[in-house]
Amino acid sequence: MKIFKPISEKKAKGKVKKIFNEIKHSRKIKKIPNFWQSLAHNPETLERTWNNLKQIMKKGALDPITKELIYVAVSITNNCEYCIRSHTFAAKKKGATDQMIKEMIDVVGIANQNNKLVNSYQVEIDKIYK
Amino acid sequence: MKIFKPISEKKAKGKVKKIFNEIKHSRKIKKIPNFWQSLAHNPETLERTWNNLKQIMKKGALDPITKELIYVAVSITNNCEYCIRSHTFAAKKKGATDQMIKEMIDVVGIANQNNKLVNSYQVEIDKIYK
Amino acid sequence: MKIFKPISEKKAKGKVKKIFNEIKHSRKIKKIPNFWQSLAHNPETLERTWNNLKQIMKKGALDPITKELIYVAVSITNNCEYCIRSHTFAAKKKGATDQMIKEMIDVVGIANQNNKLVNSYQVEIDKIYK
Amino acid sequence: MKIFKPISEKKAKGKVKKIFNEIKHSRKIKKIPNFWQSLAHNPETLERTWNNLKQIMKKGALDPITKELIYVAVSITNNCEYCIRSHTFAAKKKGATDQMIKEMIDVVGIANQNNKLVNSYQVEIDKIYK
Amino acid sequence: MKIFKPISEKKAKGKVKKIFNEIKHSRKIKKIPNFWQSLAHNPETLERTWNNLKQIMKKGALDPITKELIYVAVSITNNCEYCIRSHTFAAKKKGATDQMIKEMIDVVGIANQNNKLVNSYQVEIDKIYK
Amino acid sequence: MKIFKPISEKKAKGKVKKIFNEIKHSRKIKKIPNFWQSLAHNPETLERTWNNLKQIMKKGALDPITKELIYVAVSITNNCEYCIRSHTFAAKKKGATDQMIKEMIDVVGIANQNNKLVNSYQVEIDKIYK
Repeated sequence: MKIFKPISEKKAKGKVKKIFNEIKHSRKIKKIPNFWQSLAHNPETLERTWNNLKQIMKKGALDPITKELIYVAVSITNNCEYCIRSHTFAAKKKGATDQMIKEMIDVVGIANQNNKLVNSYQVEIDKIYK
Repeated sequence: MKIFKPISEKKAKGKVKKIFNEIKHSRKIKKIPNFWQSLAHNPETLERTWNNLKQIMKKGALDPITKELIYVAVSITNNCEYCIRSHTFAAKKKGATDQMIKEMIDVVGIANQNNKLVNSYQVEIDKIYK
Repeated sequence: MKIFKPISEKKAKGKVKKIFNEIKHSRKIKKIPNFWQSLAHNPETLERTWNNLKQIMKKGALDPITKELIYVAVSITNNCEYCIRSHTFAAKKKGATDQMIKEMIDVVGIANQNNKLVNSYQVEIDKIYK
Repeated sequence: MKIFKPISEKKAKGKVKKIFNEIKHSRKIKKIPNFWQSLAHNPETLERTWNNLKQIMKKGALDPITKELIYVAVSITNNCEYCIRSHTFAAKKKGATDQMIKEMIDVVGIANQNNKLVNSYQVEIDKIYK
Repeated sequence: MKIFKPISEKKAKGKVKKIFNEIKHSRKIKKIPNFWQSLAHNPETLERTWNNLKQIMKKGALDPITKELIYVAVSITNNCEYCIRSHTFAAKKKGATDQMIKEMIDVVGIANQNNKLVNSYQVEIDKIYK
Repeated sequence: MKIFKPISEKKAKGKVKKIFNEIKHSRKIKKIPNFWQSLAHNPETLERTWNNLKQIMKKGALDPITKELIYVAVSITNNCEYCIRSHTFAAKKKGATDQMIKEMIDVVGIANQNNKLVNSYQVEIDKIYK
């Protein structure tokens, strides 16, 4: 099949155009990334996803850099190349250093290993953790 | 089969006993968690895993709380209950608040969703991310 | 290493040739897709996989479009690009509309998110679901 | 650690109480399932997740039974027991027959197998699928 | 919902009964494991799965112990407790030693870690491997 | 972002240079694969990963070919193309035949299928496996 191709800003109308503008303004970017151009095939999904992401990734008890690093850690575990690249980009833009990224990667590596060691031995949960 | 049962501290000898003592001292705990008791079936694996974990989770460019939260984020994505519980425990012990944990969970949720939306549309990587 | 390269129809013999012909006839296609050409390295696997797929994907209590959409939903979750593309193609050929595909994608997205929220909170199963 | 325990309806206040009532009314159920009681720790997440789910799972080009089956297919692939059980329950309530569920399971099985066979042979995408 | 409960041997009829007998005879066991009792809800699936498994797991270029260890390695990676336990049981019955199992576990651990390190760095494939 | 690019041998210094030399000598290769060149961004990670891998993959109760096949089986399940290709290469170099690889693939396929069938039916663990 032809996977849905990205919808360029020129072709954007109505709700899609409005959200595209909000993304560009909010992110201070000039070009809408392909992810949002793809979601534009389904304006409700575009709107929902953008609103959810904005709400979740904003500064809270965790700072935006930490949130981006957690996002990348999940994306590495799921092997989503687009997500790894775009959110490492975002993390760096927000101030993440190379050293921070490398330490995050190490944690992702050992966590994935230990998750499987736990499965291997079917380790019972200690009382203290219940 | 009988999965390898945890090896209690009483039965620990040699290298295993030494590492058990190091774990208790380093973590300021009185009882060796089941994870380490299970790995004790393979003293080399116990030693390697403990040394790697110690090296990776120590304070660096990222603080220990952030590292624990990343560890939990991976464990949620892989659905490792033991790992989720034990490392949320560790995160809290190191100072993570409930609010920090809840925000981490939200990031894990949206990242898992968006990872799959990217797969769905087979989104091409923007030049800016390459 | 060289991963096993597809075996072209010209080189197909015996059981492989017979199944290639059956695939072309049954699917009303002129060229054997690379998936089947790859499996041809192992004629028993080719035969088994083709027979299983034919048996499972045929019209039953679920119509073939629904079955293809479920197949794609799994393939998105596992991030198998070839599988996403070839079975979206099949779904469309059998009558799936763009709107149906977009709604399937939304379900896949929210299911992947909620699966992880359930892991995060280690939600206990309600009595009514047991 | 103590994972966040479900918040019972008696303790629900404000936004949480309002959404709990909406869930009970919309689903025609008398008891709030543990999933929603768990999300109540984070009222914004509860509201967002409920609104998203309602919007996505409603009748559209796909009927609600098909959407539930797709949801279960994803949950089987991710091995989320709570999700498998609660959404099979929902599928049946909406009219899914045992035969439909069994056929969905078969598709999930073969898709997971073939996804990995494709990985094994690193099958190149046929031109027709691009 | 009620997940399909296992179908006991007493209630087995026709094709199911025949396959149950073949499983008991072939495996030299007296009781049909719950896996096969569950698949019995769908006699075609039971038959197909049994025939496929028998064909795949038999001695070939790889000996049956190696095949069982590979099966367990996949099941650990997917965290399927039933599969881990039943196929470790089978591996041991066929002659796998504890040491072999422990070494398999170590390989599964490091492979899962390195798979993610490769994702992290998006490592390009060396010419020699193409 | 720019993902960390591989560090060529010419630019390697200190610990990295030492390990690069050890890898070349131990593997009898002339060029450092991209995986190790990427890890070189983090000399401690490079050292740890190389030492762990060497320790785990060496001949033990399992022969090196079996270990490589298990490694590839995990990598197929996780869909890590680099890992599939580089460790199939290693398996062949150590003596694995095409027939052995094809049988491993079949086991990976059926295990992935059956893992999900077990999830579907939420099969309870038989007493004999506990």
